[in-house]
Amino acid sequence: MQISRRLLGAGVLGAGLVGLSAQAATPATKTPPPAPLFKATLDKARKSVAPYLKQRPDVPVPKDAGGGYTHERHKDNYRVIREAGMLYAFTGERRYADLVRDVLFAYADLYPGLKPHPIEAAPQKGKLFWQSLNDAVWLVEAIQGYAEVRSVLTPADRQRIEANVFRPMCAFSMVDSAKTFERIHNHATWAVAGVGMTGYVINEPAYVKAALYGLKGDGKTGFLRQIDELFSPDGYYTEGPYYQRYALQPFEVFAGSIERYDPAKKIFDYRDGMLVKAVYALIDLSYEGKFFPLNDAIVDKGIDSPELIQALAIVYARNKDPQLLSVSTAQGTVAFTREGALVAADIAAGKSKPFNYKSQLFRDGAKGDEGGVAVIRSGKGNRAQALVFKATAQGMGHGHFDRLSYIFYDAKREAVADYGAARYLNVEAKKGGRYLAENETWAKQSIAHNTLVVDETSQFNADVDAAQPVPTTFLTFATKDGVQFASARLDKAYGEVTIWRAVMVVERPELGRPVVIDLVRARGQSAHRYDLPLHYKGVFLDASTKFKASTTGLAPLGTKNGYQHLWKKAEAAVPEGGQRLSWFNRDRFYSLNYDAPGVSKAFLTELGANDPDDNLRPERAVILRADNARDFNSVSVLEAYGDYDPAQESVRDILPSVTGVRLHQDGANDLIILTLKTGQTLAIGVTWDGEDQNSVTLDGKTRTWRGAFGVTG
Amino acid sequence: MQISRRLLGAGVLGAGLVGLSAQAATPATKTPPPAPLFKATLDKARKSVAPYLKQRPDVPVPKDAGGGYTHERHKDNYRVIREAGMLYAFTGERRYADLVRDVLFAYADLYPGLKPHPIEAAPQKGKLFWQSLNDAVWLVEAIQGYAEVRSVLTPADRQRIEANVFRPMCAFSMVDSAKTFERIHNHATWAVAGVGMTGYVINEPAYVKAALYGLKGDGKTGFLRQIDELFSPDGYYTEGPYYQRYALQPFEVFAGSIERYDPAKKIFDYRDGMLVKAVYALIDLSYEGKFFPLNDAIVDKGIDSPELIQALAIVYARNKDPQLLSVSTAQGTVAFTREGALVAADIAAGKSKPFNYKSQLFRDGAKGDEGGVAVIRSGKGNRAQALVFKATAQGMGHGHFDRLSYIFYDAKREAVADYGAARYLNVEAKKGGRYLAENETWAKQSIAHNTLVVDETSQFNADVDAAQPVPTTFLTFATKDGVQFASARLDKAYGEVTIWRAVMVVERPELGRPVVIDLVRARGQSAHRYDLPLHYKGVFLDASTKFKASTTGLAPLGTKNGYQHLWKKAEAAVPEGGQRLSWFNRDRFYSLNYDAPGVSKAFLTELGANDPDDNLRPERAVILRADNARDFNSVSVLEAYGDYDPAQESVRDILPSVTGVRLHQDGANDLIILTLKTGQTLAIGVTWDGEDQNSVTLDGKTRTWRGAFGVTG
Repeated sequence: MQISRRLLGAGVLGAGLVGLSAQAATPATKTPPPAPLFKATLDKARKSVAPYLKQRPDVPVPKDAGGGYTHERHKDNYRVIREAGMLYAFTGERRYADLVRDVLFAYADLYPGLKPHPIEAAPQKGKLFWQSLNDAVWLVEAIQGYAEVRSVLTPADRQRIEANVFRPMCAFSMVDSAKTFERIHNHATWAVAGVGMTGYVINEPAYVKAALYGLKGDGKTGFLRQIDELFSPDGYYTEGPYYQRYALQPFEVFAGSIERYDPAKKIFDYRDGMLVKAVYALIDLSYEGKFFPLNDAIVDKGIDSPELIQALAIVYARNKDPQLLSVSTAQGTVAFTREGALVAADIAAGKSKPFNYKSQLFRDGAKGDEGGVAVIRSGKGNRAQALVFKATAQGMGHGHFDRLSYIFYDAKREAVADYGAARYLNVEAKKGGRYLAENETWAKQSIAHNTLVVDETSQFNADVDAAQPVPTTFLTFATKDGVQFASARLDKAYGEVTIWRAVMVVERPELGRPVVIDLVRARGQSAHRYDLPLHYKGVFLDASTKFKASTTGLAPLGTKNGYQHLWKKAEAAVPEGGQRLSWFNRDRFYSLNYDAPGVSKAFLTELGANDPDDNLRPERAVILRADNARDFNSVSVLEAYGDYDPAQESVRDILPSVTGVRLHQDGANDLIILTLKTGQTLAIGVTWDGEDQNSVTLDGKTRTWRGAFGVTG
Repeated sequence: MQISRRLLGAGVLGAGLVGLSAQAATPATKTPPPAPLFKATLDKARKSVAPYLKQRPDVPVPKDAGGGYTHERHKDNYRVIREAGMLYAFTGERRYADLVRDVLFAYADLYPGLKPHPIEAAPQKGKLFWQSLNDAVWLVEAIQGYAEVRSVLTPADRQRIEANVFRPMCAFSMVDSAKTFERIHNHATWAVAGVGMTGYVINEPAYVKAALYGLKGDGKTGFLRQIDELFSPDGYYTEGPYYQRYALQPFEVFAGSIERYDPAKKIFDYRDGMLVKAVYALIDLSYEGKFFPLNDAIVDKGIDSPELIQALAIVYARNKDPQLLSVSTAQGTVAFTREGALVAADIAAGKSKPFNYKSQLFRDGAKGDEGGVAVIRSGKGNRAQALVFKATAQGMGHGHFDRLSYIFYDAKREAVADYGAARYLNVEAKKGGRYLAENETWAKQSIAHNTLVVDETSQFNADVDAAQPVPTTFLTFATKDGVQFASARLDKAYGEVTIWRAVMVVERPELGRPVVIDLVRARGQSAHRYDLPLHYKGVFLDASTKFKASTTGLAPLGTKNGYQHLWKKAEAAVPEGGQRLSWFNRDRFYSLNYDAPGVSKAFLTELGANDPDDNLRPERAVILRADNARDFNSVSVLEAYGDYDPAQESVRDILPSVTGVRLHQDGANDLIILTLKTGQTLAIGVTWDGEDQNSVTLDGKTRTWRGAFGVTG
């Protein structure tokens, strides 16, 4: 009876119990069986915990870095503590409670005598792990398991565990790692979540207060301030989706804990429902289940990450949005929590609806005034596309120097790609799984992204301290005339050079399929070298300019700022006028028409030079270069087309709709004229000076449009 | 009533009707609805044919190569003819019969005036297509559609179609393309199938006779002779799975036609059931649904190819093997034939059983004495592995110079890979979709495969005429002591040098997981350079030898025979004694321990040098080199291990079982000693001289085994 009282007593999440706990507590009552997804989760937990029931806890003295034995063992242990605690809650089997207790006893023996971790690499050392961040995660996870069994332990057992494990760990977080604790940063969110949740569970209000309002209790640091500052008004986390995923877990789990112990705080309503909004933003910042790899990001990471699985369930338990259920189905599993059981039950009940991925702007900065990420969706089904325009602030230490860059997805994968982070997470042989040297020398550099590079350097000279205070100016995010349009301006990244970029996705009947238009304009005051890279995925096909390949020897394209990593595979002289090149990838063809007055050369490159440890993937790019130029101007039209079926050995739809493009400039106005295969033309005007009524006269014909952009014939 | 009589009159395949045809013929009778997979196929056919019901047939004058407009249009047309014919059979809707008639009328107007195709590239020109092969395919497909509607056409309509299309096409095949028709080759199978099926349908016994017994009627050519000679006794087609798939369709479809019109011939029993056996062989020559890319093969090609979908249904309708149903499920669709309807119905009825992929030897050569492909399966579920040892004959013009090579699959993908063909099928910009120059200069060359290369040349100097008469000698294919073993010998490929190779998959308790052992021995009479390449998939991790990378410039490893395409990325000096290197790929780690006395250097390479059109994929290899050596000896132990989960950010099982290997030779005996992480050793003896009782004494200990190989402590 105790169990069911305790579980039901949690109150707010009672709907999530779905028979299981009741079943354990009152076996005589007939209850529905757990839904298939939750049963799978429960069974998996049973299976993963089973070996630990038969062995003494393995709680080794910390020694290894990520991927090493002691690191993985302590990770396993916090998982076992949490899962065993939940298993006890859902099954009532005492052996699971005993397991939680016994593992924590082993920590009680080990922890008080521990010195800081012996690995020297981390800026903030932990005790169990090489960085204190992992220690904080340990606490967040373990306290969840302990919370489920505490009431059935003897006072002496509780005392032994709390005095030797949880209290000293909180002290380590608040005292030894105070600097981290007080930051406004995802590491600090883990820290405050661990301490705050522990405070609730062991009834130590001082911990809760410190967690919520900072060590000084003035609210200038702590959880609430983190919610205020770490998300933009649109729920965007400034480090980007990869770290948003990571940061979300302590935000959501701690919030769930606050709601449980102090529902009057209405934490999920705080700041206009930010902790709900942030989960939706993360889902929206993905394509085919993978997060946009902005900034330092492991490219495999996606919506099936455990953090989002757990966070989604927490939000679903509150808002019952059936769209979340389809995301959960795509995740393939549900959280091993009360909320996870509810998600599984509602999926099984057929309540799921497709998630409506739509075009959106995610502003960056606590006030939303530091730029943003525009996501432009187009197409449908197998041909759903996404264009991601990154015009954010720097995103702190994990930020890349990639402002005004874009990524383009088509046919379920990246077509124009971002490298993500140079890191093999948890692969010991690759620098212990940490960020590689090439993360700095390549992945963060501007040339590694689809953005304009000035003088073979990176934005802000790749200096995060210089970059962090400078926002990007987002100009327009709007749709009309079948054109989805996003534009931004970047100042100060390259001294006196100002760069504007507009990206558009045009879906109009005369085209027959969506096309991407990319308009770049830079204005300087002296001669520069401008490089516009396009990191394409696939196999190069052909070009209007003849590329001369370096067939018998390769040399790097440059010497620094990322250029040293690019093998120059081929070079072409680019004449004036519209040009075309194409590539293909599996079942799709890509055509790029461009008109870039001033561009005189193009390069084909492959990544891999100056890479002694074979750390870089052999990715390909085409780079357009204008030399000795004060300004830079280009328009390009990217069209994905074709349907190549290797099984059927057929290819269809092999002609692009756009056959050429021309750029005409008149002061602050750009006129883009597409030539179509039908013989028609399509003209789009863009203005950069904010005028409402705009016109350009070309070849005796005056074209007008209103506002930032418009189709004008 | 006419429809149902005709369909049921087919007799042998009556079980395949599954309600649909009866439904069309006798709507009053209550019949079960079509099974979901067949309904999908039927609906897809309806949809794909629908536009053609509303437009005039588009039958253009032939002009383009593969991928071009007229090429794809004529392919579409034969598909429309067949599908519309089948739609008529299954629905009884007259408009489909009319469509078949009208498209064929258009061909009747075009065909008689056609000259040979204008494209000059093909060795055997077609009329509708650039090679006569495609014309033969057109005939095989179109006659199937015509067969379904012929009885409802007027005699005048039949006369118009047969006199202007089918008869002249047969004449083109038998007269203008007589040389092809009389070959023992897959092109000829398409040719005889088209002519023979037409003979049955339009009642022209001379065509049937020519198809079955050759133009002279003496059986030295024609279909039966092709069955005799083009498959080995194990159902292996000498060109390899990619062309086996392609060849199978006319074999199976023509056989279905023979069975229908002349069941007394018992064609499916011919040569010990060869046309059944060949379908199973093709399924068995795959991993995770993709065919082993032996010889000229498009690497994407797999069991979901339409040819195998249709062939599988034909065989299933005869033998009702429930294992075939699970293959059909993996194919994702069923054939639009009577047999396809049966497959769908039986899947829906729950009759499916998993296909039992097992280790097998597929002998090559009509008599089975020209070598073979050994397939060794190991592991289970997500960890199912396959080792493919290719010790076949040459495989004619599409054969690669790759004897004694192997491919290794693990974790649902290639771990040690074969390049397949250098060809972008149907991609017009890549040489019209034909084989690229790099198919000869790279893909066929020995260095492109995981086999020993002598003196930087290829086997038989890459001369197919020299290679074709020389078989490979398969020695042993057996399992004992937890060792699956395959070995073969290659003579004359490199003048006086003879090469032996044995590959083993060892699954024993002391290892904990399967490991691959690869033993290579070559004996020459003068000094040679020996290179042993290993084309690995993934990211290089580390090695016991220090690789010095070419970081600021790349040069090709050699000048010809494929070496000119390899960039030399790194080089290491290899000391005597056991060595180790490792790489990883997504969620798996790979450790290679080797002991190769005489090997003094190792290279890391990347494909792409001397590739002006960017035709080659940037694949990686490690190459072990022995210089100035009469003989070559090596043993290597490949172990796939680990479980890297990017979503969970965890890595498990990170220690390989094998920590070292040593090779000891004593005359014709090789003793392989593995050192295990447990401290144990595992010794395996291999003998090459055919003795039954074998022993080797090492370090004072005598080890004995019986037969070709054995575990000896």
